[in-house]
Amino acid sequence: MRFVKSHGTGNDFVLLPDPDGRLDLDEHLVRALCRPHLGLGADGVIRVAPPRDPGTADVFMDYRNADGSVAETCGNGVRCVAKYLLDRGLVAGDEVRVDTRSGVRLVRCTRGADGLVQRGRLEMGEPLTLKVDLALELPAGATVHVTTLSMGNPHAVVIVDDVAQAPVATLGPVIEHHEEFPEGTNVEFVAPRGPGRIDGRVWERGVGETLASSSGGSAMAAAAHLLGFTGRQVTVALPGGELEVDWHDEGLAISGAAVEVAEGQLDPAWLAGLVDQVRA
Amino acid sequence: MRFVKSHGTGNDFVLLPDPDGRLDLDEHLVRALCRPHLGLGADGVIRVAPPRDPGTADVFMDYRNADGSVAETCGNGVRCVAKYLLDRGLVAGDEVRVDTRSGVRLVRCTRGADGLVQRGRLEMGEPLTLKVDLALELPAGATVHVTTLSMGNPHAVVIVDDVAQAPVATLGPVIEHHEEFPEGTNVEFVAPRGPGRIDGRVWERGVGETLASSSGGSAMAAAAHLLGFTGRQVTVALPGGELEVDWHDEGLAISGAAVEVAEGQLDPAWLAGLVDQVRA
Repeated sequence: MRFVKSHGTGNDFVLLPDPDGRLDLDEHLVRALCRPHLGLGADGVIRVAPPRDPGTADVFMDYRNADGSVAETCGNGVRCVAKYLLDRGLVAGDEVRVDTRSGVRLVRCTRGADGLVQRGRLEMGEPLTLKVDLALELPAGATVHVTTLSMGNPHAVVIVDDVAQAPVATLGPVIEHHEEFPEGTNVEFVAPRGPGRIDGRVWERGVGETLASSSGGSAMAAAAHLLGFTGRQVTVALPGGELEVDWHDEGLAISGAAVEVAEGQLDPAWLAGLVDQVRA
Repeated sequence: MRFVKSHGTGNDFVLLPDPDGRLDLDEHLVRALCRPHLGLGADGVIRVAPPRDPGTADVFMDYRNADGSVAETCGNGVRCVAKYLLDRGLVAGDEVRVDTRSGVRLVRCTRGADGLVQRGRLEMGEPLTLKVDLALELPAGATVHVTTLSMGNPHAVVIVDDVAQAPVATLGPVIEHHEEFPEGTNVEFVAPRGPGRIDGRVWERGVGETLASSSGGSAMAAAAHLLGFTGRQVTVALPGGELEVDWHDEGLAISGAAVEVAEGQLDPAWLAGLVDQVRA
């Protein structure tokens, strides 16, 4: 079984090419692949499958979380799928229509001097602004100010002076599970660095701190603009790398790197043995 | 650049075949390869190089820790090197003489029904018993009993009822840095499970909890025997898998699985970009 190991801003994936749509992406296989040390280690697995409707899309991105569950989409993963197809000439031009469980996403790519895709740009739609600068009461009488938005999923953005010192691991879970958010929320910590730049760190709902998130980066840029810190074009510097956010007339567009680390073959004996082990 | 991703009992490595001895295993490349998410992720990198003296060894194992530093040897890695060479017919028979920075180690391998290497056995030498059942005073007036041994490196073994409940993350670092061990010590938590079986967890000096350690497994088995819990043949069940320890007339031999997860090519653009990033 062939694989490609890719990442978008430090959000990493095992891509499994499935041009004939025959691969059974078993939950146990996904968990075995994503396990660090015993597998390849990744945030998720993407089966790169034929489009469900070739008239509207070039590819179907069958995305699975590391725990084996099905996910709707993943902004950083969509860029990696586009790079995979364009670099191998499987789609012509510089745009790829990626079908996901939440609809078809158009990725516009740019190439480096070597002719290979370096970056992809994706429309994220308009953020739904919920509450700007809401004072949230915490246990023990403290208060934290958050700006809440939806990018399809919920976000609470906290402005801080320095993200390196931000209490991500302690305050992140407290806000995630605060009674204001009955379904939980992603939490972003943002330090403005000028009219066109912010630093950020992400606490993902149900996951913990991660190196990057496309919807989180969009929420950060939108909140920083709504609070008057920045304009509508912002570079978001995350631990996994930089995302560029452009809030234009029709919504937010986000662009970032798509990187392939390696490609090769999974070992048949490992596949048989470790899948059995995870299943047991 | 070709690579093989392997693990021995959950201790994982990127093997870089270097049959001509020409590969410059730069510290920055090692760190870039071992980084999770942005690289392949591993505990270390092994350059599989020509033997320094072909009369006494089949291969030189140039082992590097994930932080880029040079290491003398690694018991779990030696088995992976032997599997790599035997499975590809690069060494004939079932034994490989692996030259390491701490001398030549002979690995005796056994094969599965598919003809491929499944396990390797390695002589670890006689443990140097330092103190059996030493009462160690801890801060706040508590006392913990440890058995200290050297397997070339220092170990302190603590007997517990249940390793799942053992205070590895809290007590591990306290013992590691205890004044009894001026150069620090590895710490093992062991629950005897009968005359031929123990459960164990490992706190590695300078690293933290890991899935497995060959010298740690040897120290666990030696301590359990010295304390009267077990015989001289013991199965050591670690979070990353099982090791078999045989304390015979000439020392401890340890055997365990060697597993290949995948093999392939590193992406040239990633190599250039990420190595630059780590260097900066």
